[in-house]
Amino acid sequence: MRPTKIPVAVIGASGYTGLELIKMLVQHPIFEIRYVGTSEGGVSLSELHPSLSSVSECAIEKADANAVAESCELAFLALPHKTAMGFVKALIALDVKVVDLSADYRLERDTYEAHYVPHIDPENLAHAVYGLPELNRTKIKEATLVANPGCYPTASILAALPFMPFRQSGTPIMIDAKSGVSGAGKKCSHNTHYVTINENAFAYAPLDHRHGPEIAEKLAVDESTVHFVPHLLPITRGMLSSVYMQVEGDFDPLELLEKVYRDEPFVRIRKTPVDMKSVSGTNFCDIYAKRSGDVLFITSAIDNLLRGASSQAVANANLMSGLEESTGLPIIAYVP
Amino acid sequence: MRPTKIPVAVIGASGYTGLELIKMLVQHPIFEIRYVGTSEGGVSLSELHPSLSSVSECAIEKADANAVAESCELAFLALPHKTAMGFVKALIALDVKVVDLSADYRLERDTYEAHYVPHIDPENLAHAVYGLPELNRTKIKEATLVANPGCYPTASILAALPFMPFRQSGTPIMIDAKSGVSGAGKKCSHNTHYVTINENAFAYAPLDHRHGPEIAEKLAVDESTVHFVPHLLPITRGMLSSVYMQVEGDFDPLELLEKVYRDEPFVRIRKTPVDMKSVSGTNFCDIYAKRSGDVLFITSAIDNLLRGASSQAVANANLMSGLEESTGLPIIAYVP
Amino acid sequence: MRPTKIPVAVIGASGYTGLELIKMLVQHPIFEIRYVGTSEGGVSLSELHPSLSSVSECAIEKADANAVAESCELAFLALPHKTAMGFVKALIALDVKVVDLSADYRLERDTYEAHYVPHIDPENLAHAVYGLPELNRTKIKEATLVANPGCYPTASILAALPFMPFRQSGTPIMIDAKSGVSGAGKKCSHNTHYVTINENAFAYAPLDHRHGPEIAEKLAVDESTVHFVPHLLPITRGMLSSVYMQVEGDFDPLELLEKVYRDEPFVRIRKTPVDMKSVSGTNFCDIYAKRSGDVLFITSAIDNLLRGASSQAVANANLMSGLEESTGLPIIAYVP
Amino acid sequence: MRPTKIPVAVIGASGYTGLELIKMLVQHPIFEIRYVGTSEGGVSLSELHPSLSSVSECAIEKADANAVAESCELAFLALPHKTAMGFVKALIALDVKVVDLSADYRLERDTYEAHYVPHIDPENLAHAVYGLPELNRTKIKEATLVANPGCYPTASILAALPFMPFRQSGTPIMIDAKSGVSGAGKKCSHNTHYVTINENAFAYAPLDHRHGPEIAEKLAVDESTVHFVPHLLPITRGMLSSVYMQVEGDFDPLELLEKVYRDEPFVRIRKTPVDMKSVSGTNFCDIYAKRSGDVLFITSAIDNLLRGASSQAVANANLMSGLEESTGLPIIAYVP
Repeated sequence: MRPTKIPVAVIGASGYTGLELIKMLVQHPIFEIRYVGTSEGGVSLSELHPSLSSVSECAIEKADANAVAESCELAFLALPHKTAMGFVKALIALDVKVVDLSADYRLERDTYEAHYVPHIDPENLAHAVYGLPELNRTKIKEATLVANPGCYPTASILAALPFMPFRQSGTPIMIDAKSGVSGAGKKCSHNTHYVTINENAFAYAPLDHRHGPEIAEKLAVDESTVHFVPHLLPITRGMLSSVYMQVEGDFDPLELLEKVYRDEPFVRIRKTPVDMKSVSGTNFCDIYAKRSGDVLFITSAIDNLLRGASSQAVANANLMSGLEESTGLPIIAYVP
Repeated sequence: MRPTKIPVAVIGASGYTGLELIKMLVQHPIFEIRYVGTSEGGVSLSELHPSLSSVSECAIEKADANAVAESCELAFLALPHKTAMGFVKALIALDVKVVDLSADYRLERDTYEAHYVPHIDPENLAHAVYGLPELNRTKIKEATLVANPGCYPTASILAALPFMPFRQSGTPIMIDAKSGVSGAGKKCSHNTHYVTINENAFAYAPLDHRHGPEIAEKLAVDESTVHFVPHLLPITRGMLSSVYMQVEGDFDPLELLEKVYRDEPFVRIRKTPVDMKSVSGTNFCDIYAKRSGDVLFITSAIDNLLRGASSQAVANANLMSGLEESTGLPIIAYVP
Repeated sequence: MRPTKIPVAVIGASGYTGLELIKMLVQHPIFEIRYVGTSEGGVSLSELHPSLSSVSECAIEKADANAVAESCELAFLALPHKTAMGFVKALIALDVKVVDLSADYRLERDTYEAHYVPHIDPENLAHAVYGLPELNRTKIKEATLVANPGCYPTASILAALPFMPFRQSGTPIMIDAKSGVSGAGKKCSHNTHYVTINENAFAYAPLDHRHGPEIAEKLAVDESTVHFVPHLLPITRGMLSSVYMQVEGDFDPLELLEKVYRDEPFVRIRKTPVDMKSVSGTNFCDIYAKRSGDVLFITSAIDNLLRGASSQAVANANLMSGLEESTGLPIIAYVP
Repeated sequence: MRPTKIPVAVIGASGYTGLELIKMLVQHPIFEIRYVGTSEGGVSLSELHPSLSSVSECAIEKADANAVAESCELAFLALPHKTAMGFVKALIALDVKVVDLSADYRLERDTYEAHYVPHIDPENLAHAVYGLPELNRTKIKEATLVANPGCYPTASILAALPFMPFRQSGTPIMIDAKSGVSGAGKKCSHNTHYVTINENAFAYAPLDHRHGPEIAEKLAVDESTVHFVPHLLPITRGMLSSVYMQVEGDFDPLELLEKVYRDEPFVRIRKTPVDMKSVSGTNFCDIYAKRSGDVLFITSAIDNLLRGASSQAVANANLMSGLEESTGLPIIAYVP
């Protein structure tokens, strides 16, 4: 028997991750969008995202937690951090399950408050589950609130985690990451201007980006161990994370990766260095590693808007709803 | 009194570095191109490089050392490694000064032969000078043969060198470098196809690129200390080198850079992370550094075809000819 | 009752249109790939297209018509013109339906031979149907051989056709078209080199491209009426066709388009000029038009590899197989 | 004897055309920048344009006509239309020669006011010279006020003008133009956002762009004759203009172009279709033309910021100052 549809909401539909959520949900076999909200409301879906004309149409509401709770079992929140907390608190109180794509429930309270703002919802923070399925699949299945990981942490943790047992104690982990511009959001600014980005590349917030502490926390090392430097590239979507670690012990990095991720449907171990485009448009994380003496180089690739945000959110919602993790997830890359 | 012109040759005019040499030499106040050669010959300059129509015109010869020696005091060689050696040997024997843009005279013989091919000209290799002016300016002035550095080594050495005294002994140096596609040359291949490169990025030859040993040798450390990973970006020209070192001692990285490069006309210390485009079209190397605990991050930017090849070659030729290093060098970036 | 699967073949799997076919067919609810062939064979699907790892796997055969006929009801041919004819002839003789993506069956024999090569299969050419559903839907449903239209003709004909009744007799039709580089194919050449294309744009084969006569024939005007100039843009996929016509009579161009295409699921009339990206990844053709006095400007956008090739081929195969035209066709754009 | 320096001002230094002016003027052998102004003032040149660090430094003033007049003989105005008029009026009254890069003095008063705003300086408008040297060289030499042409008009007029005598009377001229994004200016907006532009292309303001009337006026035809459609491409700098005309009479288009432009130093007639990149970074306009029956296709390429703005402004200033037109103009393209 075909399972009943599950009604869901998307709150924060105007940005890129909101659009990606909608693109997947309109084709999802079980989830059905019943509510779409933005901070403003008052437009139609195809006015907000003209590429969806003739594909999907619905009214977009000024986001309201009670209205969501009336019709939906689960809500995806694609809102800025701080704004997200308010909605999460209200939705959880109304018994709506939440996948929150903001940073608000990703970190321990102390770490969060040191890098963001004071937290207004410590009760829910205490039981929120970090939504990296490879790390927390069992907990996610039971969760009512999942904090969807950041894009850089997703790529970096999946790359580094299998090798942590071999890391030389006391040595730093260097992460040189590269992101497409969509990660900077839809807002126009000097750093999203075509002329600034085209034929250019540069580091930003080196050793000082908020995703550094998130990576450290999930790898279970001190913040001071992870040295994280993101770069912006002239690419719309895609992310590459290059991790450098000092290791000891006898292991073949590709064999180890194959073994650790053998049963993972959305991690692919590559025999040659990964590239951004082969994962673009998909939920895959591709990983390659090579060792030279004591130094290990690991390079992973994800689509920053999908595995780094929206498709991982759908994977989490699938698990929270008792569905197969892979239900409705994109696996075919934007190649060529 | 205006100095007399100095006649020079460009051998290997068909590639990108050959074109860049010609672009600078046709506007150089002292050097005058008297001979342009390729492996084939038999075309005109504007047939080979249509953008030079109405700008400069000359016949292109099938490269011949004797013909060069008849008319020129100095030759720029933009040939593949191995081919270069043969010409250098002949030209030096004929008393022509040479700036060689290939790898053939950059390394100690053992290192060269381990990573390239057997060397056929050890006599000249013994006295060739590595043409990084900031490192070897005095020797370059006296040299008859200058080995022009590789693009990755230029960016990486200028970034790392000032900090080598503070490096923690025994720790690795990680270099995560990013290059535009022009570095892969004019030859058509899968990795230079537009569809492969556009909206993509990937590492290649990780921990195994021949520029790793070149960097190590010039930083005076073991090959096994330098862990070098180059990446290809969807950009025509430009290069970024991100260097990660473990350091000790008390120093402010920007102050140190300012002090070391105070009198260098072609190194600019930046207060914020460097970007590729601000040096594109110029001989500048821009550098920024930041420290977090024991870890130092240094990011440098050059134009891979100019500071990483042709304009550095002209700088070397200037020095070898008793001219100001800056004569005829481009300083105004391709911005916007 | 769920319909039985229909076994199909893809011959010519190594290029971009072959890959696009496979991407759609692996997710198609009715068609099932039973045979994949290339001129060489002997590799696996994921070796040929690494982005398909973990998605789909099968052996790739050296293409053979008899082997196709043993297992498949319908074959997609993504082969170069001239090569295609040989296979079509054999497959039709073996009772396999064919959607041919080459130029071999698109034109009247005289026109074909004037612009391509002598035709070796005039028998099948005589009954082949030109596979533009908006033009020939009824005939396609009955066809055994469908000639899939060229990319430029698809975009240009859909733009111009509704206005042909209003065209001033004797006036020329100018078509200024713009294509992404994937249209030039996977082969490496000067015109597909990243450095040639990036930050560049140019016309090629102006007034002399083979798609000009194809457009004229389907618009039912003389070849000398259509003046077609294609341009290459620094974009991987996408196509824009700008059509200029001299018209008479009283009509509102947008209203006319709305009326003509009211029931067409894959034509979207836009209120503002169309853009490439909103159709990228889909089977849509977006059209906008504006009139100024006697001159009409129409601008249409398609994905050159999908509506201009592979998704249109699947639409044709759907119709030939008694399925809904839209079965398994992509409608969600690669935006952002 | 080396000529004395001529002191000049740049007003409107913050945008792209202002930067391009400064890049040329700091290397110009005769002009010397004595005054740089913006609407705000209060920064240094390298703060405004970081790529100029170590290249040129000066204070930037809040623009003031009297201060300009105290030190400068000629001023370049790179201001928005309407703002420009105010300054021009004041500067001319103070006997400062002006090259105005805005639209304010390009058109007959009626045409200007129909497409822009009421004109506040009709006195100077009456004697302003349209600064296209190929059209008005003699007048420019005598002018005190030159209206620098728009980018689209420069490319389109140079393409169309030689063929106007052969145009079939009463037929329309269609111009399909393509521009890089720098033409849209430095301001951040949806249409300059990297994600909007990258992998995209679209027409804007079709048949309704203000450069249409400018082209018509200078070609001496009715506004209703010129049908102008500009497109935005994913390119930083460069412009292509494709002109379609109906012609009569017997002529070879390339021979005609060669003849008309024989003595023009900054027009190059090409034997194959022009490309954007071969003129990028230069003052050249490249032109190619092909005829098919009664229809003529002409394609021209310029750098929109240079020949389409700033280098043409310097050419005009050279002529107004009694210098060779080519003094200090860039001729070497940003290739590769």
